[in-house]
Amino acid sequence: MKPKIRLCVEHPLGEGQQVALTREQAHYLFGVMRLGPGDVVGLFNGCDGEWRATVEDAGKRGGLLACQAQSGPQVMPPDLWLMFAPVKKAQTQFIVEKAVEMGARRILPVLTAFTNSERLRVDKQQAHALEAAEQCGATHVPEVAEPQRLDRLLADWQGRRILFADESAVGGAVSLSGLEPGPWAVLIGPEGGFSEAERSRLRGMDCTTAISLGPRILRAETAAVAALTLWQQAVGDWR
Amino acid sequence: MKPKIRLCVEHPLGEGQQVALTREQAHYLFGVMRLGPGDVVGLFNGCDGEWRATVEDAGKRGGLLACQAQSGPQVMPPDLWLMFAPVKKAQTQFIVEKAVEMGARRILPVLTAFTNSERLRVDKQQAHALEAAEQCGATHVPEVAEPQRLDRLLADWQGRRILFADESAVGGAVSLSGLEPGPWAVLIGPEGGFSEAERSRLRGMDCTTAISLGPRILRAETAAVAALTLWQQAVGDWR
Repeated sequence: MKPKIRLCVEHPLGEGQQVALTREQAHYLFGVMRLGPGDVVGLFNGCDGEWRATVEDAGKRGGLLACQAQSGPQVMPPDLWLMFAPVKKAQTQFIVEKAVEMGARRILPVLTAFTNSERLRVDKQQAHALEAAEQCGATHVPEVAEPQRLDRLLADWQGRRILFADESAVGGAVSLSGLEPGPWAVLIGPEGGFSEAERSRLRGMDCTTAISLGPRILRAETAAVAALTLWQQAVGDWR
Repeated sequence: MKPKIRLCVEHPLGEGQQVALTREQAHYLFGVMRLGPGDVVGLFNGCDGEWRATVEDAGKRGGLLACQAQSGPQVMPPDLWLMFAPVKKAQTQFIVEKAVEMGARRILPVLTAFTNSERLRVDKQQAHALEAAEQCGATHVPEVAEPQRLDRLLADWQGRRILFADESAVGGAVSLSGLEPGPWAVLIGPEGGFSEAERSRLRGMDCTTAISLGPRILRAETAAVAALTLWQQAVGDWR
């Protein structure tokens, strides 16, 4: 049985390896979760897989863990980006969390014609991504990139395929069966949709596939989970 | 262009039909959304389709709308239930909202072996379902049923097919291509998963199909959207 409490650390992991805790990690493990010496924690760092570690020293401001044995391999999610138009802070946090659970490897906030975003704190969203990875059993924490303008991003686009949710698209089921494997990005527009210019720009690119997400209007976070589901099921790690 | 502000009313709708507003509806339209006489609202009642109506009288405690013309047909979602194990209030509200967006026709909270739920106020969740229908452009408001024990529900089960997310299932893609049309229920377990007894009970029923939702642990609301996506894409109204 894998440890229920998992921690992402910036530290090499290996047999007998000791890991010093930051103040925040010590507070979480010993203050919030009430662990003490001898208790077991799962550790990962994004490259060495998952390790079972025991608490050797528990303090208020720090502590020491010791790796015992590897409890799982390093698993990279498929080469999939989630690009989405951020709006409100709580919703952005939610989309970041869902992207991690759904196995996106990289998260890119994009500013579209109809994006009217609050300022996005990338460091805070990165922390949310880390927490989500700890909770969903992942061993990789997706990078949250700096927000970029969609028009500039597409102007320099290097051929990665794009699956975008288009309210005017029909027959999503047909196009999905033919998705090719390889690097992809799922693109979710803001709640006002894409502008006409953005839509025709996207439709004019060779690397894009438009899909329908049904007859109802989905909120951005629902659309993100739905589109990532369709991709994972068609060519990702849900197969 | 359809009206952006939509209201679900308990009133027959038809050409020239006048609709009196409740105090809450008047507050929303005139206090919150700042509408006034002559402004346009979309109306639906779950059976007469969507109607374009204009404000005839706007007061603080009430008001009067008049239907002008039908702006959309009555659309029933597929015969799909979402059964889920409620946990915290905010998350339950979220799942109800997502179920409406994703086109479930009926929402059934189920109490499983590992459900440790706060008391669920069905009237409040029904109000959230109504709001979600107003926002997502639906003309049907799913019923939120009283919570029921899963074991009792399954003991009286009448043959409706069940798609359930099983953490121990593999090869979801294979089974989905063969889903039969007809009445279905999507069943999402609590975050602790189903008990062994529940799992073997479900697997032993003729009408059940187990699917995998990938290698990561999904939160209940993510699992609900993902499973509903797979169903809608395979046999629902996303085809």
